Amino acid sequence: MRHLYACNAGPLEFCQYPYTPKRGLPYGMEPQTVTLMDDGTLRLYVYQTLVKTIEVSFLLEEDEIRHVVLLSDGVGNWDAVVRELPEGRYIMQWYFDGICKINCRAPLCYHRGKICNFAEIPEKNNDDFLLKEVPHGTVRQEYLFSDVYGVYTNCWIYTPPSYEKEKERQYPVLYLLSGTQGNETTWIWNMKADLLLDNLVHENKCQEMIMVCTAAGKYEDCEEDASTEAFICKDVIPFVEAHFRVIPDGRNRAVAGLEEGSLLAQDIYLHNQRCFSGIGVFGGTLQKKVYENGHKAVLCFCTEEKNVQMWRGAVSDMIQALFRKEEKGE
Amino acid sequence: MRHLYACNAGPLEFCQYPYTPKRGLPYGMEPQTVTLMDDGTLRLYVYQTLVKTIEVSFLLEEDEIRHVVLLSDGVGNWDAVVRELPEGRYIMQWYFDGICKINCRAPLCYHRGKICNFAEIPEKNNDDFLLKEVPHGTVRQEYLFSDVYGVYTNCWIYTPPSYEKEKERQYPVLYLLSGTQGNETTWIWNMKADLLLDNLVHENKCQEMIMVCTAAGKYEDCEEDASTEAFICKDVIPFVEAHFRVIPDGRNRAVAGLEEGSLLAQDIYLHNQRCFSGIGVFGGTLQKKVYENGHKAVLCFCTEEKNVQMWRGAVSDMIQALFRKEEKGE
Repeated sequence: MRHLYACNAGPLEFCQYPYTPKRGLPYGMEPQTVTLMDDGTLRLYVYQTLVKTIEVSFLLEEDEIRHVVLLSDGVGNWDAVVRELPEGRYIMQWYFDGICKINCRAPLCYHRGKICNFAEIPEKNNDDFLLKEVPHGTVRQEYLFSDVYGVYTNCWIYTPPSYEKEKERQYPVLYLLSGTQGNETTWIWNMKADLLLDNLVHENKCQEMIMVCTAAGKYEDCEEDASTEAFICKDVIPFVEAHFRVIPDGRNRAVAGLEEGSLLAQDIYLHNQRCFSGIGVFGGTLQKKVYENGHKAVLCFCTEEKNVQMWRGAVSDMIQALFRKEEKGE
Repeated sequence: MRHLYACNAGPLEFCQYPYTPKRGLPYGMEPQTVTLMDDGTLRLYVYQTLVKTIEVSFLLEEDEIRHVVLLSDGVGNWDAVVRELPEGRYIMQWYFDGICKINCRAPLCYHRGKICNFAEIPEKNNDDFLLKEVPHGTVRQEYLFSDVYGVYTNCWIYTPPSYEKEKERQYPVLYLLSGTQGNETTWIWNMKADLLLDNLVHENKCQEMIMVCTAAGKYEDCEEDASTEAFICKDVIPFVEAHFRVIPDGRNRAVAGLEEGSLLAQDIYLHNQRCFSGIGVFGGTLQKKVYENGHKAVLCFCTEEKNVQMWRGAVSDMIQALFRKEEKGE
């Protein structure tokens, strides 16, 4: 059995473990709620004595891809095996006696501004987004006081595997904006950008770089001119350049965004073209001006919204295009 | 209005923002679900057209402290003002048409192995656990391959404010175990140990130190002798001493645990007394042997389980006792 969620998850997804005891069993002996088996099937398990039916709906966006009825053994153990679910990251809706509820013990993610249960069937021929035995970077949770917003904000900053070993080395930097319904965790937990970079670096497919994950979108009670663009340019970039070893020039700086964050990333790029050598647009609308200027910067975009895995593939393409590993002569 | 949750929260607690649009309002204009006002009242708000009643129960452990009925304006806006709720960290149970559900847009925490809604009324005369304008340390998410368990595990490691500035300095280190129903996020998100340390250091009440937050409890499919003690002593401590600037001796190393983690911390201390100069026991049972040996180590304990705020106070006492700021002569 693969420890997919235990090994390859943000803490949000961890809530299905540690286990709680089933009557008569010690701590840790109850099966996980959702387990991905080696053959790609999902095993679902719930201990519940108070309901008459448990069903689960697997959704991609609004479309129900599979509906599963769990079976009870009459003494509280409910289970189901879900076979041949296509690869993808599904929203799971759990129905207890027909009422849709969050399953507090199953993996959770953010999706469109809410907490949802989810399950992921990884791609068979692509392990770029899985936790592998390679050197790992570090995700750092930084508090950053924003003069633009007048409040503290959180940035999650990925530093690459060599960062703590090569104490003088400077790195290129990629600024990542979430959608307005995401936050600084989105690029790490949903997109697995940290694991992707660990894996690409290990395979020599890109330079090591620093990634700065921020939340797009405004806070309550802010000044009129408190824009995400001002936040990135006046608060975030100076903070990063003061506290991290980044190469401080436009050729080594790029920006990308998800959904509404992709529109903001394009504005930031268009208004500051000398400051960025790359721009990534994931979801949202591609602005004509960015496209026309595409020859100046590395431009990557993907507006297919059905499946997070499609987006991740485009992010992988972008990262490999942005800061290419330079070929060394013999 | 204080941005309590926006400014002083782990990402789990962030799910009430970014906002989703109420019909006719742009993004970001819908009020927060739970807002702590300057006068200590809580304002609750939900936009919901499909139910006939919304109620909320505030619990401390099993005891209902307050029951609140939200009022509707007939077009989908529900609200309530909750006055004079005593200081504390409450589990909130939301009832929609009498059915208890997670409110996906209200703050969430882990509690006894499940995801729950919660609300916190901070202590009036103690701001040690709030995000203040002081220098902040960094919480680092590290992947650590455990030879004992045979899987990757996550550790969250707090480095103090001076860590990146004083490149040669070594620090004392405190190892923190969660309960078996918590994980490596518990000491940061629930206990606010990172903010506490930022504040105590700023007020010169303790030395700067590194804190290593780990999950207690076993994984599935492990070897019989794969204990938390072996994990801490054979995996975690060597990893930390190899990757962080810690003072590598027992006088500058301490261990503490929450609930079941406190029993494990005591075992670890009793079996390795030369390796630790301090032991903290929060919840669980105090072992007689630890008490008898208390004169050798700094011993702190608190078994009051009603309110997280009680525990936090005991943690603050421990941290100040463990690695005291040495008085400097003039």
